[in-house]
Amino acid sequence: MAQVVKEHVHHYVLNASESNARREMPLTLLAQRVIEIATEHADIIGVGFDVMMKDNLAWVLSRMSIEMNRMPRVREEYSITTWIESYNRHYSERNMEITGANGEVLGFVRTIWFAIDLNKRTPGDLSMLESLAITVSDRPCPIEKQGRLRPIGEPTHVGEYRFRYSDIDFNNHVNSVKYMELLLNQWPLEYHQSHDIARFEIAYLHETHFDDEVKVNVAQVENVADAEILNENAVACRCRVIFK
Amino acid sequence: MAQVVKEHVHHYVLNASESNARREMPLTLLAQRVIEIATEHADIIGVGFDVMMKDNLAWVLSRMSIEMNRMPRVREEYSITTWIESYNRHYSERNMEITGANGEVLGFVRTIWFAIDLNKRTPGDLSMLESLAITVSDRPCPIEKQGRLRPIGEPTHVGEYRFRYSDIDFNNHVNSVKYMELLLNQWPLEYHQSHDIARFEIAYLHETHFDDEVKVNVAQVENVADAEILNENAVACRCRVIFK
Repeated sequence: MAQVVKEHVHHYVLNASESNARREMPLTLLAQRVIEIATEHADIIGVGFDVMMKDNLAWVLSRMSIEMNRMPRVREEYSITTWIESYNRHYSERNMEITGANGEVLGFVRTIWFAIDLNKRTPGDLSMLESLAITVSDRPCPIEKQGRLRPIGEPTHVGEYRFRYSDIDFNNHVNSVKYMELLLNQWPLEYHQSHDIARFEIAYLHETHFDDEVKVNVAQVENVADAEILNENAVACRCRVIFK
Repeated sequence: MAQVVKEHVHHYVLNASESNARREMPLTLLAQRVIEIATEHADIIGVGFDVMMKDNLAWVLSRMSIEMNRMPRVREEYSITTWIESYNRHYSERNMEITGANGEVLGFVRTIWFAIDLNKRTPGDLSMLESLAITVSDRPCPIEKQGRLRPIGEPTHVGEYRFRYSDIDFNNHVNSVKYMELLLNQWPLEYHQSHDIARFEIAYLHETHFDDEVKVNVAQVENVADAEILNENAVACRCRVIFK
């Protein structure tokens, strides 16, 4: 049964086994949780996997921007709250607030979701999801909206990768979080150990599939790195990482 | 506060975003959940991350054997129950039962855990963890214990990989689940789409680290594949996959 639930909260504890070498939550796990809680809320308000599938539609993450003051630490209880900021026939804007122990605000995430028509592999029309309109919340999200990520300049680093079995999700294309892993893997462990990320933005542009061989171009000037994953001539995704 | 809790259960729902192209739980996610619930139970009975760290110890997964009748399906509620089968000063045997909707038994997992001394990087002595003894349960686990995984024969397939940032865990070595990903990635997507795994066994032998370049040797005869990940001359792990 669909319900009008404007805000959905999920409480977690960061396990040691999930933590990175800094004993904090990895950015990719946060992204996974963001997708998870968006999926949960969609189920609650009646626009989840089952309902969408009846129209051969599936939600696809199009953009994500993350700004964290700090990441949850090992054994810390943290919560993610999600709400819909806007909705139209083309896409839905959904935000998240992450709080840590004692309700400390750790950061915010902005996401934009399209629906994909699973047969035609084209964006689906969301006009029939009228039910979304009444769940829009005016809760503020204090981080900037994502601008257009433009083609990057001369690369300062180039990487390569071929997508394997474990990179493929239930839509039969490369999982959104796996692009992030691939992007963050362009820096060595020591760089991540000593550099916090102030803002991470990603825009997903084209699907990639099993066995696709991609190039990862990174153009970094001081603390700002622009990157893209190229699949032959198509840009699979663009990303901007601002280190503190 | 430590408690005597012989069995610990965690209830989950398999999200669409977590599912593989078969719309089921990936084996690697099951392994992640197994490690997660073991970590939770250790916390409850007073031998968790914080307590162990006081003696500079951390739990390390040494062996894991998985037999599933079927995997949880997308949107299915499933539960994992864990209990300790035995405990001595060298290691602890911990089992799991996975049940799906309506309590259907989906399968079982056996694990063996050592403690590692984080300074010396050698196995730690567990004799001081007397508290574990009273939490041993006689609940049966109907799958076979793991035999010794011997050096594999002439490889029928050889792969290569260099461990990246996202492969490293809080102990500063390669995450146990990432070895499984690497092993399963030696088969193409189509093979996994059409072949269920009857039993998966893995033995972790030597740590590997960021930027280590490894070889993956697979010797498969019909439905039985033996594999090992080699880091220069050390065997990082051995694995046996029995396909149905």
